[in-house]
Amino acid sequence: MRAPVRVGLLGCGNVGSALARLVDEHADLITARAGVGIEITRVAVRDLSKARDVKVPSDRFTDDAASLVRDPDIDVVVETMGGVDPARALITDALRAGKPVITANKELIARHGPELFTTAAEAGVDLLFEASVAGGIPLMRPLRESLAGDRIHRVMGIVNGTTNFILTRMSEDRMSFVDALAEAQRLGYAEPDPTADVEGADAASKAAIIATIAFGARVAVDGVYREGIAGITEDDIDSAASLGYAVKLLAVAEELDGGISVRVHPAMIPVHHPLASVRDAFNAVFIEGEAVGELMLYGRGAGGGPTATALSGDLIDAVKNLVSGAKGATIGELVDRPMLEIAETESQFYLLMEVADQPGVLAAIASEFGEHGVSIKSMEQRGMPQSSDPEGGVRVSRSASERAKGSDDDARLVFVTHRARESALSATLDSLRSVDSVHRVGSVLRVLGDED
Amino acid sequence: MRAPVRVGLLGCGNVGSALARLVDEHADLITARAGVGIEITRVAVRDLSKARDVKVPSDRFTDDAASLVRDPDIDVVVETMGGVDPARALITDALRAGKPVITANKELIARHGPELFTTAAEAGVDLLFEASVAGGIPLMRPLRESLAGDRIHRVMGIVNGTTNFILTRMSEDRMSFVDALAEAQRLGYAEPDPTADVEGADAASKAAIIATIAFGARVAVDGVYREGIAGITEDDIDSAASLGYAVKLLAVAEELDGGISVRVHPAMIPVHHPLASVRDAFNAVFIEGEAVGELMLYGRGAGGGPTATALSGDLIDAVKNLVSGAKGATIGELVDRPMLEIAETESQFYLLMEVADQPGVLAAIASEFGEHGVSIKSMEQRGMPQSSDPEGGVRVSRSASERAKGSDDDARLVFVTHRARESALSATLDSLRSVDSVHRVGSVLRVLGDED
Repeated sequence: MRAPVRVGLLGCGNVGSALARLVDEHADLITARAGVGIEITRVAVRDLSKARDVKVPSDRFTDDAASLVRDPDIDVVVETMGGVDPARALITDALRAGKPVITANKELIARHGPELFTTAAEAGVDLLFEASVAGGIPLMRPLRESLAGDRIHRVMGIVNGTTNFILTRMSEDRMSFVDALAEAQRLGYAEPDPTADVEGADAASKAAIIATIAFGARVAVDGVYREGIAGITEDDIDSAASLGYAVKLLAVAEELDGGISVRVHPAMIPVHHPLASVRDAFNAVFIEGEAVGELMLYGRGAGGGPTATALSGDLIDAVKNLVSGAKGATIGELVDRPMLEIAETESQFYLLMEVADQPGVLAAIASEFGEHGVSIKSMEQRGMPQSSDPEGGVRVSRSASERAKGSDDDARLVFVTHRARESALSATLDSLRSVDSVHRVGSVLRVLGDED
Repeated sequence: MRAPVRVGLLGCGNVGSALARLVDEHADLITARAGVGIEITRVAVRDLSKARDVKVPSDRFTDDAASLVRDPDIDVVVETMGGVDPARALITDALRAGKPVITANKELIARHGPELFTTAAEAGVDLLFEASVAGGIPLMRPLRESLAGDRIHRVMGIVNGTTNFILTRMSEDRMSFVDALAEAQRLGYAEPDPTADVEGADAASKAAIIATIAFGARVAVDGVYREGIAGITEDDIDSAASLGYAVKLLAVAEELDGGISVRVHPAMIPVHHPLASVRDAFNAVFIEGEAVGELMLYGRGAGGGPTATALSGDLIDAVKNLVSGAKGATIGELVDRPMLEIAETESQFYLLMEVADQPGVLAAIASEFGEHGVSIKSMEQRGMPQSSDPEGGVRVSRSASERAKGSDDDARLVFVTHRARESALSATLDSLRSVDSVHRVGSVLRVLGDED
């Protein structure tokens, strides 16, 4: 029996301490599966005075992360500190020293993945990052290995638990966005500053990583288009539900016309689509492959236990390679592929309009759609929301000019289009706004997973 | 650039030919990911005269599978012929000759997995079988690798597309079992002889493989308890729906009191449970782990494309190991663990009873539950189905003795229990049948995924 593999842990917060506990509590099982014991030999933390709920002796803690990484008594490095710096330099040092690295750091992989993959490949060691996207859900391994023989066309993911929790509460409990956010904060699902979640930046990092792995392409995270959920109203959710859709914040990575589109935005999904039933803080990633068809991977996208499980799976893998002397699994050469602008992407669209309730209006509207080559799939007339109703009624707010144009006798029309190019839809909207009998174009939402 | 790895394909039916097409159509991608080209060098089939929709030259076909396996010009063997014999001997020969084997053969792995794992480990080569369970859904790899650091408590799977299609039609289109089966046969989802699907034998093989990998235990497939779906009535499905449940055929592998239970039976699942929304011929496997929490993997469980994708992922993995000289991934030592009888398992239960509509009946029934330590979670009185209604009415059939006891003034009671041991429930049922005012105990269904 050889001596245990010695792990240096960078960071011992929620995720790092969960990993230390897992390595302790599942020692028998991990030893059996890795073929050798695994020991948390050193832990680098910022604040040595802070109490940690782990069974690692205190003399193994250090506040000198750089020395931990260079320590010849450390065989493998696990990084759970988060953020780009100093994680980037520490991981680079570890890889150059021939040490496999396991990381949960989505921001770092999204921003500097390609550079780190190259460093790992040159050193011939593993750089594994299953935990960086969708927590405990096996996703990187299925994309890289299980689906290695197939061509992936599109990945759509609910990869941010905070926003999915908020949208679930809005949908199931008829809460407003503001109230649902407050509830999420109260329960610890949302940060005191929820911007990164609500505005889609967190999901954009994950979308960039997914696209990189699914398409083997270099993806600039700053080029990922994103829209958040702060503008979603109860009215949108009700209207979606009455048409048989759920509203979800999606990270989308898609191949289209030889280019790739990577984006984050809310979308309406048919209630029968597997993504529609992903509730609360759960995550799920829906994959469409040429041969495999539709796949979905579902689970907890955050939290100590799930994330630590993903880290431990990668750790066991790296340790097996280390012990057997196998060369680490490297990401192949990444290619540069055209990144599509949002205007070049395609989807179905949902539109809500307030129009004059008079003959000929629908014909005028339909002709604007037709002129821009956008085909209408369905149209429905709705009652106007009652501003006087103090209970459930939702008053769509209007600008002064819209109020000037509108009247209480307006009709509300709800359209769902067939698949159309986003630029064509934008042009249609511009034209519609100049039609006299169209008093207001309200919500516009993309519709995915339906006919497309 | 080294010469392509030479694959010998055993069987060229639906799955085998789909693999050959995949290897051809995705050659660039597979070469990039495997690090070397992959060529289908020989194909063994039973009938050389049959036309095959593959681009493999006809002089590569043979009807001598044994010689293909021993051919020194074959590096890797992919088996898609199915059935225990002669696949068992052929795979054993290939492994002993130092050739990695990829197989989609659930029956063989369920019956002779442990023996073949040992042969592979002794030869130091890969034996990979992702395609043997749930088609294109990555399952074996997540269980073996992604979740290697976690302890799995329970796996519940919808692993038979035929029965899930039938149950979906019964639920969504109010079809009878017989009509839904006929529809499944018409659409090619069910075999002309549907026994293996409908009675749960197919699912039992998959349950045995899942339990073997999830728990690292030797599982005798003949010891897997199974009940099929032929006894499920429209009435059961309606009743489940009105209580907020869906009826699904589940393969369950579960750790309980140090033993393991492996079984296949229909069960009621809460409509909000992710398994409940798995429709038509789709498969899904729901995994409960100690640290990772709840995971679900969803996709197409059968069909050429999905199964070939799983085979190709394994093939690329084996080829990478072959080229790098890495020792194959072996299943660790399997242990013998007590296999629980169905009577020793626990779940919630749903019961439907017809009782005399008179005072004191409920008290008599409740006391029988209480005496056996089975706690009632909910009770509901229902109207009797109308036998005279020619449309939707369902007449529960009765035996002669039951008819003698019953009357048209009966009340129907529906119970859902808290979690109880199956033996206690059976004893309760026996007692209830001897209560004079209980005229009939109708359907009894297990309820999973609710409070437990």
